[in-house]
Amino acid sequence: MFHSDNLSVNTKNHLMIGSHDTVDLAREYGTPLYVLDEDLIRKNCREYKEAIETYFDGNGLVLFASKALCTMHTARITAEEGLGADVVSGGELYTLYKAGFPMEKVFFHGNNKTPDEIELAITYGVGHMVVDNRFELDLINEIAGAKGIVQNVLFRIKPGIDAHTHDFVKTGQIDSKFGFALENGEATQIHRYASTLTNIRIDGVHCHIGSQIFDVDPFCEAAKVMINFIADLYESLSLKIKILNLGGGFGIKYVAEDDPLPPTDYIKKVAETVKDIAKQRNINLPFLVFEPGRSIVAAAGITLYTVGCIKKIENIRTYVSVDGGMGDNPRYILYGSKYSAVVANNASAELVAPITIAGKCCESGDIIQENIMMPEIKVGDTLAVLSTGAYNYSMASNYNRIPRPPIVAVRGSEKKLIVKRETYDDLIKNDIL
Amino acid sequence: MFHSDNLSVNTKNHLMIGSHDTVDLAREYGTPLYVLDEDLIRKNCREYKEAIETYFDGNGLVLFASKALCTMHTARITAEEGLGADVVSGGELYTLYKAGFPMEKVFFHGNNKTPDEIELAITYGVGHMVVDNRFELDLINEIAGAKGIVQNVLFRIKPGIDAHTHDFVKTGQIDSKFGFALENGEATQIHRYASTLTNIRIDGVHCHIGSQIFDVDPFCEAAKVMINFIADLYESLSLKIKILNLGGGFGIKYVAEDDPLPPTDYIKKVAETVKDIAKQRNINLPFLVFEPGRSIVAAAGITLYTVGCIKKIENIRTYVSVDGGMGDNPRYILYGSKYSAVVANNASAELVAPITIAGKCCESGDIIQENIMMPEIKVGDTLAVLSTGAYNYSMASNYNRIPRPPIVAVRGSEKKLIVKRETYDDLIKNDIL
Repeated sequence: MFHSDNLSVNTKNHLMIGSHDTVDLAREYGTPLYVLDEDLIRKNCREYKEAIETYFDGNGLVLFASKALCTMHTARITAEEGLGADVVSGGELYTLYKAGFPMEKVFFHGNNKTPDEIELAITYGVGHMVVDNRFELDLINEIAGAKGIVQNVLFRIKPGIDAHTHDFVKTGQIDSKFGFALENGEATQIHRYASTLTNIRIDGVHCHIGSQIFDVDPFCEAAKVMINFIADLYESLSLKIKILNLGGGFGIKYVAEDDPLPPTDYIKKVAETVKDIAKQRNINLPFLVFEPGRSIVAAAGITLYTVGCIKKIENIRTYVSVDGGMGDNPRYILYGSKYSAVVANNASAELVAPITIAGKCCESGDIIQENIMMPEIKVGDTLAVLSTGAYNYSMASNYNRIPRPPIVAVRGSEKKLIVKRETYDDLIKNDIL
Repeated sequence: MFHSDNLSVNTKNHLMIGSHDTVDLAREYGTPLYVLDEDLIRKNCREYKEAIETYFDGNGLVLFASKALCTMHTARITAEEGLGADVVSGGELYTLYKAGFPMEKVFFHGNNKTPDEIELAITYGVGHMVVDNRFELDLINEIAGAKGIVQNVLFRIKPGIDAHTHDFVKTGQIDSKFGFALENGEATQIHRYASTLTNIRIDGVHCHIGSQIFDVDPFCEAAKVMINFIADLYESLSLKIKILNLGGGFGIKYVAEDDPLPPTDYIKKVAETVKDIAKQRNINLPFLVFEPGRSIVAAAGITLYTVGCIKKIENIRTYVSVDGGMGDNPRYILYGSKYSAVVANNASAELVAPITIAGKCCESGDIIQENIMMPEIKVGDTLAVLSTGAYNYSMASNYNRIPRPPIVAVRGSEKKLIVKRETYDDLIKNDIL
């Protein structure tokens, strides 16, 4: 009935996440509330890991892309499941470090790492820096030198693949702030230059073509380009590139029309492509790295709201206002993202009319979803918005000084508060009068 | 040379805000850094106040719209200048309360106030609740009753004015989540109903037609509709409405093409309209309330960044990456908002080529501004983005777990840190492992 298997309806006609009644969760923790199904997150982690076992003889590593959802608890879960992680900032790195995440399994991304961030990463012993530009490479070489170490690096390459996705999250083409272009020789040049640096060890190449992509072909295309590039580097510079990091971007199901492939399908086809080309070009198989974020956590998360007000505007539309909004889920106002919603306390009710779910922010654009078919809704109902595990908490703001919601993780019959609700005192904590 | 008078260039060719060298500020406090010119904020407050003195015999009040920028310090400044404030959440209210803001001069807005927020507002003695819907009205009546008080309220009315602005910030038309429509009789009905409630005192009406509006006519139109509505209420229900709150939305100058009127012009013309219609309809002049937010603080604020990386992509574009981005200024990715920028350490340099200012977030849409003409830029330069005083800090997020920048206020030769920079420990403060 729902597009994610971990959701069901109990005899009270309440929405269940795993074995937990969402109406009870809302009552216990208050709303708005993020709920995460930890079992599903762990299952998704294993699915990726097993796909690498099956289709690439285990010669690879799955990283959880922290930017999708970065908390100390999720860092611990993914570490326990044997994943590595990618981080894009000192703050993400710090969170993982404090959660005891193995630093050697961390890849540090970003188009503009600050000197402080590089210093922190090297101090913590981050396994790989993914170098975006030459300024940064020099900085890493210098800082690593000062600390008397040799830093493993990958270079971020723009493979020139045009993924069919939203412009904002499209990153593989030459017109991108990220990485080195292949077609103009930049990518080769930087390898030539890096091989002259004392405190840099060239360990791999990286690309990431975009986000929320449903088609496997662009990933295979990118893999082809990248493995050929590895072969070219060996021929032209005698460089042996060990790691091929192909990034992430695997699409997930937000609404019924979305039709993502199972993660294994991506891994299988990409692995086949890599093996084929490596054989053709007569090079060793690289160590394969993937960076799923959204596809590990998005469907595992839901957001629970309380309906505070309903406005039926005759012949125009019905606004249902909830106690959260663009502060905790800015994806509709940012990208026009689609979401599904359920009346949690009347979960199998018949859909009767389109409504617009509005937030409580003082802004007309503060909409969670427009004109979606829903059952009758009353003030006081609990509304569940589905597939909010990725890029909701991580993008949340305090716009209108609304505290950010807490996160509760459920696992089997257990539940645990993993991020506390912000208080009003948190909001003024850094204010100086 | 700059579109805001408080900016100038000193003999070192550095950008000055008030009497402060921005390059020195960046060095002292680090970047990214929000800087606020407190003198300009105070001047803007006075300009509005004096306009009401001049054109409406002082029979009115200017509220600072907290959502534009809500800090304890700005609350104190605006209170010192004799302004009231509007708030849209418990968090904004709490901030003002803790700053010692006079609660009787606070108007509480919002389309979905929670029971807790209403309770807090009544406990603090908020002067006026601006009622958005009937559910809320009943709740206010009930809570006020339980506390044994009579709460002053205004009703938010949709005047049916189509302001020429971005859809996201257009709020006066009937298809809005805010308020009661005039044209279908809702607005009259709610007054009839409210006059039967024991713990509600109907004190005024409110409307707000949108944001960043340059034209004075829509404001006059709204004023006309509203004052006529006040006269109608007197005729039909013998209700004497004392307060007419006409909201805000006065445009400001972000780029050279923007051509806002001085605030006094808006007040003058609106005041004339109100007087005319009041005379025609033979009613007493109402107490006039305005709610500027952006126009008080936007031009008073700048953001200072350090350039970390420059990518010149031949025949495509040049990306200049700074150490902030959509986290501290999400207005470009949200609305495509225009901004002007200056190389703070080379402030009068000749403009030579278009560049795109990108942030450090791991997202292609993380852009501060696209293709604006700038001088030569080098890594390490300090970049100032102008008119960031409104809706930058207030909308900031921790996306990518990047700490939010601090705010420094300058006044004459003084400077003061008014919001501290977030630390990595702040980011994990609510995490439970």
